[in-house]
Amino acid sequence: MLSVILIGAGNVASHLFNAIKKSESASIIQWYNRSIGTINPFQNDVEITDDLSALKEADLYIMAVSDDSIAELSNALPFSNRLVAHTSGSVSIHQLDKKHKRAVFYPLQTFTKGAAIDFSEVPICIECLEKENLQVLKSLAEVLGCKFYKINTEQRQTLHLSAVYVNNFVNQLYRIAHEISDAKSINFDILKPLIMETARKVQDMSPYMAQTGPAKRNDKKTIKRHLKQIESEEHKAIYQMLTNSIKKTHGQR
Amino acid sequence: MLSVILIGAGNVASHLFNAIKKSESASIIQWYNRSIGTINPFQNDVEITDDLSALKEADLYIMAVSDDSIAELSNALPFSNRLVAHTSGSVSIHQLDKKHKRAVFYPLQTFTKGAAIDFSEVPICIECLEKENLQVLKSLAEVLGCKFYKINTEQRQTLHLSAVYVNNFVNQLYRIAHEISDAKSINFDILKPLIMETARKVQDMSPYMAQTGPAKRNDKKTIKRHLKQIESEEHKAIYQMLTNSIKKTHGQR
Repeated sequence: MLSVILIGAGNVASHLFNAIKKSESASIIQWYNRSIGTINPFQNDVEITDDLSALKEADLYIMAVSDDSIAELSNALPFSNRLVAHTSGSVSIHQLDKKHKRAVFYPLQTFTKGAAIDFSEVPICIECLEKENLQVLKSLAEVLGCKFYKINTEQRQTLHLSAVYVNNFVNQLYRIAHEISDAKSINFDILKPLIMETARKVQDMSPYMAQTGPAKRNDKKTIKRHLKQIESEEHKAIYQMLTNSIKKTHGQR
Repeated sequence: MLSVILIGAGNVASHLFNAIKKSESASIIQWYNRSIGTINPFQNDVEITDDLSALKEADLYIMAVSDDSIAELSNALPFSNRLVAHTSGSVSIHQLDKKHKRAVFYPLQTFTKGAAIDFSEVPICIECLEKENLQVLKSLAEVLGCKFYKINTEQRQTLHLSAVYVNNFVNQLYRIAHEISDAKSINFDILKPLIMETARKVQDMSPYMAQTGPAKRNDKKTIKRHLKQIESEEHKAIYQMLTNSIKKTHGQR
């Protein structure tokens, strides 16, 4: 049985808590948070504490805390030579205090408070400094039913950046389409199947192969008409920039 | 039994052919294409022709042809006062020759040659000039198991524009993430669940509510680090423009 102590109580921590709780081969033996109030509701499910000096011994400490507090908090942990992993996409493994066996356990997914997530669909990016600790991290990923990938800090930071494009930026394009269609009293529901299909398509083929539309065809007439239709200068600038980007990718000019 | 004659043999036509063929309450009684070679493989399933003067009588003629040929071809049809619908997202209903009962039957989805599509997931945007013809269009949508929406030409053109944002532009962001991660030998598969979840999230909540990430939080440190990481000037410009767009949407400056 893999024993885990959870540190922090944000979105990632809560989702990890729920996922590990369901498993039979790992258990959360303690949950620490700076303010006990946040984890009070869980006191019947797990031992909770807001006192670092009360932390027990465990196979793995998962620090699911804000990027800025990783260095300081890892230094404040009153023990050494135990396996401590942070869950950040952008913080170097070396920000963890070197008295620990340092590791990263980064779930690449968008976690929304309250929204259930199927953890088996979450890829875990694993990094550790000493090879012998890899197995513990792999075991936890397996316990959660996740696919895992050995990823170094530079790669993880690149993934974190890529995720901004495919998540935050993509979502902003959804938002713009929502604004544009709302302005003409169009039900946004009409666009939802297309949104799903566009995401589904690149599960099996490269985004390069999946591309269609006026920019790829360099259909000047349609592009011109679209630009005339767009009322907001901001939306127009985004249309032009991404159209040029597609043209460049597909050898149009 | 609703009788349909299909005109054209592109992606939309082929998908419509396959979908209608499966139904029991509509039937394609003839398939016309300018070059017979394209539809030759279907000659055992349906009557085919490349001769406009051989067109039979039907409840509905669906012109699934390129935008540019709609006006001319609808004029060349050697009959009048029958129901003729085009399938374009951007062409006005008035481009159809006025000798016909004019209509639009626009399936808002991305069709890829060869890739199967569940037609019941395709929203159909319906328009017609005379109210009494609405029922035929609705019936066909129902036969296909589709949701349908009454949409006028201006709304349809706005949907077509919105679709470029949520499909072509979104796909280009996938492509950029692919390039960025490829450059560091990262398996693009890691990003695929995030891509799906980002699309899934806006099925139940507005893109505004679904937004997360550094731009929304105005996390200057992360944004600065990302910009430093990005090697291509083009990717950097897109990062900046979409970050500013998110900030503006969420009241950051």
